[in-house]
Amino acid sequence: DPNLKVFSLNSNRELAKEMAEHIGINLGKCSVSSFSDGEIQINIEESVRGCDVYVIQSTCDPVNKHIMELLIMIDALKRASARTINVVLPYYGYARQDRKARAREPITAKLIANLLETAGATRVITMDLHATQIQGFFDIPVDNLLGVPILSDYFLTKELNDIVVVSPDHGGVTRARKMADRLKAPIAIIDKRRPKPNVAEVMNIIGNIEGKTAIIIDDIIDTAGTITLAANALIENGAKKVFACCTHPVLSGPAIERIDNSCISELVVTNTIPLPEQKQIDKITPLSVAPLLGEAVIRVHEKLSVSKLFD
Amino acid sequence: DPNLKVFSLNSNRELAKEMAEHIGINLGKCSVSSFSDGEIQINIEESVRGCDVYVIQSTCDPVNKHIMELLIMIDALKRASARTINVVLPYYGYARQDRKARAREPITAKLIANLLETAGATRVITMDLHATQIQGFFDIPVDNLLGVPILSDYFLTKELNDIVVVSPDHGGVTRARKMADRLKAPIAIIDKRRPKPNVAEVMNIIGNIEGKTAIIIDDIIDTAGTITLAANALIENGAKKVFACCTHPVLSGPAIERIDNSCISELVVTNTIPLPEQKQIDKITPLSVAPLLGEAVIRVHEKLSVSKLFD
Ligand SMILES: Nc1ncnc2c1ncn2[C@@H]1O[C@H](COP(=O)(O)O)[C@@H](O)[C@H]1O
Ligand SMILES: Nc1ncnc2c1ncn2[C@@H]1O[C@H](COP(=O)(O)O)[C@@H](O)[C@H]1O
Repeated sequence: DPNLKVFSLNSNRELAKEMAEHIGINLGKCSVSSFSDGEIQINIEESVRGCDVYVIQSTCDPVNKHIMELLIMIDALKRASARTINVVLPYYGYARQDRKARAREPITAKLIANLLETAGATRVITMDLHATQIQGFFDIPVDNLLGVPILSDYFLTKELNDIVVVSPDHGGVTRARKMADRLKAPIAIIDKRRPKPNVAEVMNIIGNIEGKTAIIIDDIIDTAGTITLAANALIENGAKKVFACCTHPVLSGPAIERIDNSCISELVVTNTIPLPEQKQIDKITPLSVAPLLGEAVIRVHEKLSVSKLFD
Repeated sequence: DPNLKVFSLNSNRELAKEMAEHIGINLGKCSVSSFSDGEIQINIEESVRGCDVYVIQSTCDPVNKHIMELLIMIDALKRASARTINVVLPYYGYARQDRKARAREPITAKLIANLLETAGATRVITMDLHATQIQGFFDIPVDNLLGVPILSDYFLTKELNDIVVVSPDHGGVTRARKMADRLKAPIAIIDKRRPKPNVAEVMNIIGNIEGKTAIIIDDIIDTAGTITLAANALIENGAKKVFACCTHPVLSGPAIERIDNSCISELVVTNTIPLPEQKQIDKITPLSVAPLLGEAVIRVHEKLSVSKLFD
C-alpha cells in the first residue's frame, strides 16, 4: 500500500529496520541530524501527503533529545499533510513519573502525552507501559502491547523444570501471573519492607521457591538494584537457580556491573531499547519485538484488532 | 510581595541570581537534577500556591534538555496551584526554524510555543526574538525586550569617532537603524549575493564605510561565519576598525577560533547565554541583561507597561 509509510528516528534504527522488513516495505527517507549548536534538524525526503505514517522512536537515554526529535518529526509530518501520524514508542520514557507521589511533583508521563497530542500524533502504539493508566493520559487511541508472550516463549524453549515465576514487587503481580499461566508454573512475590527508617529493606518472599528454578519478571530494569537484591534473596531462601527477564532494559549506571556480579544466571530482555556495544555481556539475551510491533502496524493499518496479538 | 516567586533552572543560574538581586528577593528553592537514566527530576521545595511564579531558563545548548526542564517545571508549578506561570526565556532556542523554507520542514519555533502553552505557561518574557513574528506563534502575552539599548550604551562609553553601524544582512536593518539612532551614526548594509550556484558569495557593501569605525550588529552569533566574513569585507573596503556585537552569543563549533583569527577588534555580547569558561577570551566583552530582565519582571508583576524599557 503506497499510503503506508514507516519512518525511523535516531533512538532505535536496528529495531525499525527489522520492523520494516517484517512489514515488507522500505523505511521512509528522512534525515535527522543536528545543527552546530545542537538544535535538531529534520528533513523528510519523500512525500507523505495523504499517507498513514508510522514513526518509530523509543524515548530512551538521551531521553530529552529523543522526545524532541519525535515532537519535531510529528510537527513536520503534520505540516506535510500526512493523513494520520501513528507514533510507535517501543519504550515510553518518563513513564515512572505517572503520579504526584509527593507535593509539587510534576506528572511528566502525562506531560509527554499532552506534548505528543499537541504536536499532532493521532495514535500511539507502545509496549508494557509502566502503569497501564498512562493509556488514559491520552485522548487518542493507545495500543499497549505486552512483552510477556515473547519472554515466555523463550523460557518455554529452554524446557526448564520446577519453575516459579517471581514478581519483584506487588505492582508486578499481574505480569508475573500472565507469564506463570504460559509456563504452567506457580508464582511467588517479593514483599519488600523497611522495618524502620534508615534501616536496610527486608526481602520477604511470599510463596514456595524451595529447590525451584525462579524466573523474576519486571517491566523495566534500570539500575538493577531491585532485581539483583531479589535474586540474592531467592537463592538465600533456597531457590536452585535464578533467571531474570524484562521488556525494557534501561540498564543505567551500575546495572551491568551489578548483574555481572549477581547470582542471576541469565537476563532475558527485548530490544525496545538497544543494548550499547559495551552492554553485550554474556549473561544478557536480547529477544526481538520487531515481529510483534511490525504485526501491530500491519493490523492497525488494515483496521484489524490488535488485541489478538496479546495471546 | 510574598506572592512573587522567581525560580531558576539549570541553563543560566548566574543570570538568574543577578536578576533576583535586582528584584530584591531570593530565588525559590527547587532542585533540578537527573535520575540515573537521564530523566529529569524536579522538586519544588517551597509552596507556590496562589503565587505569581517567574521561571528563568535560556533554551541554549543542550537545547533539548533545557526545553524539557522548562516544560516539566511548568507542569509541576501548574499542579502545585501557581496562579500565573511566567516564563522568562532570555534566549529562545529553535527561533531560526520559524517558517517552512523548504517542503516538509518542521516549524519548530511554533512547536515550542505550543509546547509551552500546553505545559501551562501563562506569559512569556524574552529578548531579541530572531523573528518578531514568533510573538504571534503564542496565544498568551509575549514581551520581547531588546538588547540594542544595552549594547549601544556600552559603545557610547567608548567615545568612538566617525562610526558606521553595519547590518550583516537585509533582515537586520531595523536593529542596525535603532543602534545608529542611539549612536547618532549612519548605517551600512552587507548585501550578500551568490553570482552562480557553487561559487563563493560576494560581500557587497551598501553605504559609506571608508575610513570609519564599523560596528556590526546581529541578534545571534552562532558559528561566526557571517560576522567574520563581513568584518573582512569591511576592512578590505576601507573601514579603519571593526567592532561586532550581538545579544545572543551562541558561539558554536568554530566560532571562537574564527573570531580570534578575524579582524574584529572586540566582540560585545550579553549574558542571555552564558559563556563557558573556555570562551572567556580577551576579545569578548559580556554585558549583563539582568537589570533589564529584572526590571521587566517587576513591571509585569506590578502590572506596568514593559514597553518603556525599550527606550
Ligand atoms: N527515571 C527514573 N529513575 C528512577 N526513579 C524514578 C524515575 N522516574 C521516576 N522515578 C521514581 O520512581 C517512583 C515510581 O516508581 P514505581 O513506584 O515503580 O511506579 C517515583 O517515586 C519516582 O520518583
Ligand atoms: N540551529 C540552527 N543552526 C543553523 N542554521 C539553522 C538553525 N536553525 C535553523 N537554521 C536555518 O537557518 C535558516 C533561517 O535563518 P534566517 O534566514 O537567518 O532566518 C533556515 O533556513 C534554517 O534552515
